[in-house]
Amino acid sequence: MSEFGQSGIVKRGIERADAKAVERLGRSGVATVHEAQGRTGLMKPYMRPVWPGAAVSGTAVTVLAHPGDNWMLHVAAEMIKPGDVVVVAVTTDNDDGMFGDLLATSFRARGGLGLVIDAGARDARTLAEMKFPVWSKAIHAKGTVKATVGSVNVPIVCAGMLVNPGDAIVADDDGVVVVPRERVVAVADAAEAREKNEESKRARLAAGELGLDLYAMREPLAKAGLKYVD
Amino acid sequence: MSEFGQSGIVKRGIERADAKAVERLGRSGVATVHEAQGRTGLMKPYMRPVWPGAAVSGTAVTVLAHPGDNWMLHVAAEMIKPGDVVVVAVTTDNDDGMFGDLLATSFRARGGLGLVIDAGARDARTLAEMKFPVWSKAIHAKGTVKATVGSVNVPIVCAGMLVNPGDAIVADDDGVVVVPRERVVAVADAAEAREKNEESKRARLAAGELGLDLYAMREPLAKAGLKYVD
Amino acid sequence: MSEFGQSGIVKRGIERADAKAVERLGRSGVATVHEAQGRTGLMKPYMRPVWPGAAVSGTAVTVLAHPGDNWMLHVAAEMIKPGDVVVVAVTTDNDDGMFGDLLATSFRARGGLGLVIDAGARDARTLAEMKFPVWSKAIHAKGTVKATVGSVNVPIVCAGMLVNPGDAIVADDDGVVVVPRERVVAVADAAEAREKNEESKRARLAAGELGLDLYAMREPLAKAGLKYVD
Amino acid sequence: MSEFGQSGIVKRGIERADAKAVERLGRSGVATVHEAQGRTGLMKPYMRPVWPGAAVSGTAVTVLAHPGDNWMLHVAAEMIKPGDVVVVAVTTDNDDGMFGDLLATSFRARGGLGLVIDAGARDARTLAEMKFPVWSKAIHAKGTVKATVGSVNVPIVCAGMLVNPGDAIVADDDGVVVVPRERVVAVADAAEAREKNEESKRARLAAGELGLDLYAMREPLAKAGLKYVD
Amino acid sequence: MSEFGQSGIVKRGIERADAKAVERLGRSGVATVHEAQGRTGLMKPYMRPVWPGAAVSGTAVTVLAHPGDNWMLHVAAEMIKPGDVVVVAVTTDNDDGMFGDLLATSFRARGGLGLVIDAGARDARTLAEMKFPVWSKAIHAKGTVKATVGSVNVPIVCAGMLVNPGDAIVADDDGVVVVPRERVVAVADAAEAREKNEESKRARLAAGELGLDLYAMREPLAKAGLKYVD
Amino acid sequence: MSEFGQSGIVKRGIERADAKAVERLGRSGVATVHEAQGRTGLMKPYMRPVWPGAAVSGTAVTVLAHPGDNWMLHVAAEMIKPGDVVVVAVTTDNDDGMFGDLLATSFRARGGLGLVIDAGARDARTLAEMKFPVWSKAIHAKGTVKATVGSVNVPIVCAGMLVNPGDAIVADDDGVVVVPRERVVAVADAAEAREKNEESKRARLAAGELGLDLYAMREPLAKAGLKYVD
Repeated sequence: MSEFGQSGIVKRGIERADAKAVERLGRSGVATVHEAQGRTGLMKPYMRPVWPGAAVSGTAVTVLAHPGDNWMLHVAAEMIKPGDVVVVAVTTDNDDGMFGDLLATSFRARGGLGLVIDAGARDARTLAEMKFPVWSKAIHAKGTVKATVGSVNVPIVCAGMLVNPGDAIVADDDGVVVVPRERVVAVADAAEAREKNEESKRARLAAGELGLDLYAMREPLAKAGLKYVD
Repeated sequence: MSEFGQSGIVKRGIERADAKAVERLGRSGVATVHEAQGRTGLMKPYMRPVWPGAAVSGTAVTVLAHPGDNWMLHVAAEMIKPGDVVVVAVTTDNDDGMFGDLLATSFRARGGLGLVIDAGARDARTLAEMKFPVWSKAIHAKGTVKATVGSVNVPIVCAGMLVNPGDAIVADDDGVVVVPRERVVAVADAAEAREKNEESKRARLAAGELGLDLYAMREPLAKAGLKYVD
Repeated sequence: MSEFGQSGIVKRGIERADAKAVERLGRSGVATVHEAQGRTGLMKPYMRPVWPGAAVSGTAVTVLAHPGDNWMLHVAAEMIKPGDVVVVAVTTDNDDGMFGDLLATSFRARGGLGLVIDAGARDARTLAEMKFPVWSKAIHAKGTVKATVGSVNVPIVCAGMLVNPGDAIVADDDGVVVVPRERVVAVADAAEAREKNEESKRARLAAGELGLDLYAMREPLAKAGLKYVD
Repeated sequence: MSEFGQSGIVKRGIERADAKAVERLGRSGVATVHEAQGRTGLMKPYMRPVWPGAAVSGTAVTVLAHPGDNWMLHVAAEMIKPGDVVVVAVTTDNDDGMFGDLLATSFRARGGLGLVIDAGARDARTLAEMKFPVWSKAIHAKGTVKATVGSVNVPIVCAGMLVNPGDAIVADDDGVVVVPRERVVAVADAAEAREKNEESKRARLAAGELGLDLYAMREPLAKAGLKYVD
Repeated sequence: MSEFGQSGIVKRGIERADAKAVERLGRSGVATVHEAQGRTGLMKPYMRPVWPGAAVSGTAVTVLAHPGDNWMLHVAAEMIKPGDVVVVAVTTDNDDGMFGDLLATSFRARGGLGLVIDAGARDARTLAEMKFPVWSKAIHAKGTVKATVGSVNVPIVCAGMLVNPGDAIVADDDGVVVVPRERVVAVADAAEAREKNEESKRARLAAGELGLDLYAMREPLAKAGLKYVD
Repeated sequence: MSEFGQSGIVKRGIERADAKAVERLGRSGVATVHEAQGRTGLMKPYMRPVWPGAAVSGTAVTVLAHPGDNWMLHVAAEMIKPGDVVVVAVTTDNDDGMFGDLLATSFRARGGLGLVIDAGARDARTLAEMKFPVWSKAIHAKGTVKATVGSVNVPIVCAGMLVNPGDAIVADDDGVVVVPRERVVAVADAAEAREKNEESKRARLAAGELGLDLYAMREPLAKAGLKYVD
C-alpha cells in the first residue's frame, strides 16, 4: 500500500473482483453481505441513495479528488470497464455537486454501473429518470472547478471505509458495503448460506415463535442477570 | 419512577392507554395531537419514517438497549400485545441497524404495529414492502451483538422525550408524539375539537381571507410595534 | 441596505423581478441557473423539498422571524402577489414547524407559489397532496407561538444566502438558488445558452466520447503533473 | 408525573436531595458517580463547561423555557435556595445565549451554585472571572425575548436525561450527571467505595501490572474467541 | 449590491467605519453590541476563538474563497490597512486550514488586527503565542492549494451574517458581531448607555433583589397565565 | 492487507517506524509534517486534544473496538512498547468514554506515550494533571462494558485515515497526522527542509513584504482572471 494518499497518479491496469461473485453479492444485498463477512466493510450511514430503490453491485474504480474540484471524475471515466462502480473520496469534507447527468451519461456509455461519492451529487431528478444509481453524502447543485489533480485507482478511504481499486461494491437502500477483491467468492457463499438460514427463521417467527426460543436466549439472558418483575 | 435508568429489568404487567382513544389519536395525526396537548410530547425532528407514508398509533412497549447490541429487542417481542408499538432508547448515541425484517416479522406475529427507535434500522426496502412502519434516527446495515442486558418496560428518554410503558405513541410523516397514558381520552377529545375548528378556518383562508383578520392579529401586531412602510 | 437586520418593519411596495424571465429560470432548473450566474446564489444543501418532485420559480417575499414564532408568516400572507415565493429566515437556528397546510391554503389563495424556510415545516403529507412546494431545513410538528414581531420584505440571509425582496427564487430537487432581481434576464439567457450547449455534449458523451477529449483536458492535466502508471 | 411537559406552572415547595450526600457526590466527580449508579444518569456529551475546571454539585431547580426566550430564568431565580443548581431545558433545540453575568449575579445572590442549560450561555469571560460554573450546549451572544411562559420545578428532559426538581446534579470537566433525589445517599456510598477500590488498582497498574491480570480477563477473552498471532 | 457573489474582483478603495467608534465597540464587547443594535449582526455560534481570551475590533476586509484554496488570502494581505480585520467566506462549507502563522505574520506587518474565517485555521499554538486573534469554524492542519480566484472586498455572507467591506467587526469569547459601517457611532453610543444601565442593575441583583421586581415582570407573567402551585 | 476489518485477532510482532525519525517528526509538528508528505495523512478535524498544549509523536499500536465496549484497550496495553501511541477505531460512530486515568496509568507504565481515539475519553482533568496526551472525538463520562472482542494491531480507519500498526503518529493542537512506517525518514527530512524554508519567509513577511511578491503570484492571478477595481 505504498501509494496510499499519493496525488497525481492514474493506475491503468487494475485487477478486478470476480464478476460472477460480484453479481451474486448484489443479489444478497448490503445487510446480508455485511453480516456474511463478519460485520465489516460498511460505509457510514450518511451515504444515501439519490433516488429510492437504487441498487447496484460492481467493481471499484477509485478516485481521490480535491474539495470543490471534479477534474478527476473525467479522468476516471476513461478507466471504467463494463461492470465498474466509481467510488470517490475527497481529501477533506466537501458537499459540492461533483457529479451530474452529463458524467452519468459518460460513465454509462463506458459500461459504468453507478457511483458512490463521499461528497455531493446534482441533477437528482434526471439521475432518477435515467435510473443511474448514485449514493452520496449530499444532494447539492454547487458547481466545481477543474484545477487540481488528484488520483485514480489508488487506495482511498470513502465514508470511513478503505476501498482498494477492484474491490466489490454493493449498495442499496441500506447503504454501501465494500468486499475486498480476494474475498468475494467466499463472502458470496457465506451470504447465500445466511439467506437460506434466514428463510426458515422467518417462517417460524411469522408463526409466532419467539426469537428468545428460536435462538435459545433465555438461559444466557438469565445468566447475564436479566430479571422479570410484575 | 424509581426504576428510571435501571438495567436488567423486564416489567411484565403494564397498564396500557385506552385502545379506542389511541386509535382516535392516530386519526388526528401527529401535528394536531401535539397541539392538542399543549405543544408537548414531540420527539426530536431527526426521527424520520423509514418509508414515506408510514403512520401508526399504539401503546408503548419500551426498551433500553446498549449501543451496538439488540438483545433486548428479542426480549421485548415476548412483551408485545396486539396494538403495541415498540419504542427503543439506547444508553448512548448509536446509529447501528438494530432492527430489520426478521424482527418486524416477529413483532407483527405478536400483534406489534410498529417501531420507534433512537438508533438505526435496516432492510429498509423489505420493511416498506411489508408495510411495517418504523421511525428511526438512521438507516444503516450495521449489525449488532447480543451481549449486554438492558431493560424492557421501564421509563426511557427516546429522542429527547420521556416515554413510560403503556403511553400512547402517534407517528406519521411529521414525526413522533407521545401522549401520557392517563391523558389519552382528554387529548383525543381536544384533537378532534381542534380539527373541526380548523376545517372552517381552512375554507375561509382558501377563499382569500387573511389570517391577520381571521385571528384578529392586526391590533396586537401594532401594539407590539410592527410598522408598515412603503 | 440600511434596513438589514431591522425588526418590526413590513415593506409594502417592493419591485419584483421580471415575471417572464423568472418563468424561464424555472424551466432551466437550479443546477443550470447556478452555473449560468457564475456558480453563485445557492443556498446550503440542508434545504430539501418536503415532497419529491417539487419545483418552483417565483419572486421573493422575504420574512425575518423569531425562533419558535411564526407570527410574521401571517403578516407576509397579505404581502403576497401572484407569482411570489415566500422566503423565511430566523434570527437564530431553529427547526420548529412554522408552516403547515393552513398557511399553505392561505398563501395559495393569495397567489403564492411556494415556500422556502430556514426552519421546519409540518403537515408534510397534506402539503404533498396539495402539491404546494416547500423547501425546509426540517420536517417537524413542533408548534410555534405568535408573540414577537420580526420583519417582512427586508433583506435576509436564508440558509447562507442573501435574499432581497423581489429577487428570483428557483427551487427543485437539487436545492434552492437566488437570482438578484436586476440580473434575471441576463441569467435566463445564459442558462438557456448553457442548456443548448449541454445538449450536444450529452449526445457525444452518450456515444462514448470522453470528457477528456470533448473538453481538451489531456494537455492541462499533463501540465498539472498527472501521471499514468501500469 | 402528571405535570410532565405542562406549561405555565411554577412549583414552589419541592423536596431536595440530602445536602450532605450531594456534597459527597461532588467530591467523587461525574465519572465515578455515573458508574456508581449503574452507568446511568449522564447527559449528552455536547454539554460542556463554559470555562475549564468548573465543577459543582447541588440540587436541581428545573426550568422549561421556550426557544429564544429566557423569561422563566428570572422566575426561577426566586425559587433558588442555597445549594441549588438551575437546570434548563428548552421545548425545542435552541442555542441562544439565555444566560449571562447579570443572571449569574442574581442566582449567586440567592444561593445558587451553578447552571446547566441545554441551550446557549454568554458573557463567557465574565462568568469565568466570577467563577460561576455553567454547562451549556453553546456559547452564543444571541439575546432573547421575554414573551412566553414556560414552567419552573416540573420534570424536564435536559440533554437527553430526565431531571426532577430536587434531584442531585454533579458536573465537572467530564460532563453532567443526574442522581434521583431518593438515591443520593446510596450512590454517594457506592461512589466512595468505588474510589477506594480504584486507588489500589491505580497503584498496581502504575507498577506495570496489566489490567488483563488485575481483572482476570485472559480466560474470558480466550473463550470469546480472541486469538494471538505473530 | 450588484457585485454580490461575483468572482475574480478585488476592490481597492473601500470606505471604512469610523476608527474611534470601532474602538469603542470593542470596549463594549460582543454581547452588549449585539443587544445595542437591536439583537442583530451576530454570526453563528460555531465561530470560536482559536485561543481563549482573544478579543478584537476592527474594520472588515472581506474575502470570498474557493473550498480548499487560500489564494485570495494572499491577495487580501495587500488590501489591509492598519485597524483592519480580515473576514473570509468560502463558496461552500469547508474546514481546511486556510490560515496559519505565516499569513498572520504578514497580516500583522500590514497593520491587520485579526481574522474571522468561516473555515479552518492552523498553527493554533503559534497563533496563541503571537497573540494574533482568530475566530474560525475549525482548527485543522489541512493544507490548501492556490488555483482558483475568488474576490476581495465584495459583500459576503460569513457564518450566516452579511458583511460589507468596511463594516465594523467585534469579536471576543462570546462570538463575532458585525456592525454596518454607517451605524457604528449610533451603536457605540447605545452600547455604552446599555453598559451604564447594567451597572446599577448588577449592584441591585448582587444585593439579592429579584429580576422579577427590578424589571416589573410579575404582572405581565400573571397576565400571560403563569401560575404558582405548592 | 488481508486482515483488514477482521475481528478477534491480536498481532504480537509488528514492525515499528524508526524511532529517531518519529522523534524528528514530532519536533516539526502536525501542520508541517502533513505538508511535507504531500498534504496527506491528516485525521478529521473533530479529533481534538483533551487538554490544550498536548503534543506527542510515537508509533501506532492499533485497536478496533466495538461501540460501548473498551475490552480491547486492556488487551492493547500488553502490546505497548516504549514509544508507542495507541490508536483506537470503533466499528461504528460512538462517543462513549472508553479511556480514563486508570488506563492512562497502565499505558504509561508500559511505555505508552499517548492515545488517539475515534470515540470518547473521560477523567479529563486527571489526564491533564498527569500530562498524558489524548486526542478524542468527545469528552464523555459514559462507561463501557467488556463483552465483545475486537482486534489489536490490524489496519484500521481512524477518523477518516488509514492507520497500519507501526506507523508514525504525530499529534498536537492542530490535530493528528499519520505517516506510513516506511516513509518516516523521507518525511522527516522534507519537514525539516520545509521549516528552514519557512524561517526566511517569515522574516520577509514580518518586514512587510507581500506573499504576492514573495511567491510571485501576481502574474498567475492575472492569468486566472483576477481584476482590480476602484
